[in-house]
Amino acid sequence: MKLLDIYAKMKGDLDAIEGKLARSVTSDHVLLSDASTHLLKAGGKRIRPLFVLLSGKFGSYELDVLERVAVPLELIHMASLVHDDVIDNAETRRGQLTVKSKWDNRIAMYTGDYIYGKALAIVTELENPQIHQILSKAMVQMCIGEMEQIRDFFNTKQSIRNYLLRIRRKTALLIAISCQLGAIASGADRRAANSLYRFGYNVGMAFQIRDDLLDLLGTEKQIGKPPGSDIRQGNITLPILLAMQEPAKADELQDEINKIQASNGAGETKRALNIIRKSAGIGIAEEMATRYMNKAIDALSGLPNITAKKNLTDIAYFVAKRNY
Amino acid sequence: MKLLDIYAKMKGDLDAIEGKLARSVTSDHVLLSDASTHLLKAGGKRIRPLFVLLSGKFGSYELDVLERVAVPLELIHMASLVHDDVIDNAETRRGQLTVKSKWDNRIAMYTGDYIYGKALAIVTELENPQIHQILSKAMVQMCIGEMEQIRDFFNTKQSIRNYLLRIRRKTALLIAISCQLGAIASGADRRAANSLYRFGYNVGMAFQIRDDLLDLLGTEKQIGKPPGSDIRQGNITLPILLAMQEPAKADELQDEINKIQASNGAGETKRALNIIRKSAGIGIAEEMATRYMNKAIDALSGLPNITAKKNLTDIAYFVAKRNY
Repeated sequence: MKLLDIYAKMKGDLDAIEGKLARSVTSDHVLLSDASTHLLKAGGKRIRPLFVLLSGKFGSYELDVLERVAVPLELIHMASLVHDDVIDNAETRRGQLTVKSKWDNRIAMYTGDYIYGKALAIVTELENPQIHQILSKAMVQMCIGEMEQIRDFFNTKQSIRNYLLRIRRKTALLIAISCQLGAIASGADRRAANSLYRFGYNVGMAFQIRDDLLDLLGTEKQIGKPPGSDIRQGNITLPILLAMQEPAKADELQDEINKIQASNGAGETKRALNIIRKSAGIGIAEEMATRYMNKAIDALSGLPNITAKKNLTDIAYFVAKRNY
Repeated sequence: MKLLDIYAKMKGDLDAIEGKLARSVTSDHVLLSDASTHLLKAGGKRIRPLFVLLSGKFGSYELDVLERVAVPLELIHMASLVHDDVIDNAETRRGQLTVKSKWDNRIAMYTGDYIYGKALAIVTELENPQIHQILSKAMVQMCIGEMEQIRDFFNTKQSIRNYLLRIRRKTALLIAISCQLGAIASGADRRAANSLYRFGYNVGMAFQIRDDLLDLLGTEKQIGKPPGSDIRQGNITLPILLAMQEPAKADELQDEINKIQASNGAGETKRALNIIRKSAGIGIAEEMATRYMNKAIDALSGLPNITAKKNLTDIAYFVAKRNY
């Protein structure tokens, strides 16, 4: 089934989640509501809620319970984006002005804090401490991932392992627990919850590697921002690290990256992009994304053959191969 | 009993909490550990942990349980301070460099996020969802309070009610739930927990009003920062609002505040301080702090006459009258 068809099938429940998301950030405080709502309207694929819902199909699916997991996970994702935009000095995201550029950094920081808080207030309505524990531990790891990203800015000497650890914390973990918590909240058994965690983790890794590839390969129209944004911010991704391992390319690429770093993000990325696009790094990174995709699909093998399993498989395939 | 004697009596347990605080922020990530530890070492009165412990005396006091409330509450307080320092552009706090000045704003933002996360990871070890609910709701209110402070910067036309609502969210709430959660975690009955909440809320209000008075009246030695810091940041506190209500002073004071605002925090606060110090606002604010103190002490009246009750009464007295 195509991704759009899966979304269409789940539309009713996803719409309910969308409504709850909108209500969740409405507060007495106009500015906080405005900034959060602006953020919500900027959209996003709501992939985490979708994973929660599909994972919930492996237990006793109750929307009322699952949305208390799905909404907080999407809110945490959103809050981390607002704080990211402060760090990355981003003016736009998905073609919309960021909170930090529409208002300012201070508003963006507290809007993020506020959304984190709202996420917790909703998830704690479920009286299952295990869910609270898993979520709070993931939040700590996500912060460590964010800090590692700052530490590693423009560091072309970092290891591949370092990159993988970072995207694990930054991206894969939240997707992993989206699947795991969907299962736990719906009372699926421990084995199913663990399988779904592993599925989510591997899909998350594939997703981020693909995202990093798209930033190098995509057109502005496809990815909603100029290609090469990662290099401009100093975010040294997998294909770049792989290209740096090619002796014939390393020096020239390093020079280009040095220039971009010296320009404080204003520099031209065209030459760096050309070098990377012609390197073997692209193919190797694509292979790695495919390998994670296959591991994700393997993780589902012990689960009952319900439609949700087929849907998750299709999503894994889409995530690893997508062009937008 | 004097405050120092109360601290001395509780020293063993407070030291245990101090140790757990230090361990709690140690992570694989050197920079996060360093920034958090720097913050911890800058100290503070640890008044929230003290309130947790004393409130725990109204149930079955177990340090092992209470520290899982006390440590998170102190961490949340610390995290809010790091984020505050970003907003306030503060170079020092309690005579120490702030995280944002020792490192930078980005590090400060993520250090705050990380400490919030750690706080949640610890409190969720207690399998009582009610505790998680109370804490997360308080975090949301605190963020709203912080945003209100930004909105109200340099607004001398705001109402007294507005000021009171803001300090309620910014300060009183966290102290209120320190008392409430200490009671709940130790299994004290609902009535006791509610009484202690009301005690904490009123002490918190008295505490903040006194803090705001000290910023206007204290010497740099007493308060660890130059007096008038609040005005310089645009934080219009109760005595200032009261002074603005005196027709003979309003225009001159407004002029001075305008100059300070125009100077972007570099201006001289001496004349503004002189006007405020000579106003009736000081005395009225002191009276209000005393009134909150009395309400706090009243809130304890239904509780059993154990030593902790006497200690809380003494702390309330100290908080409302202190000179440092």
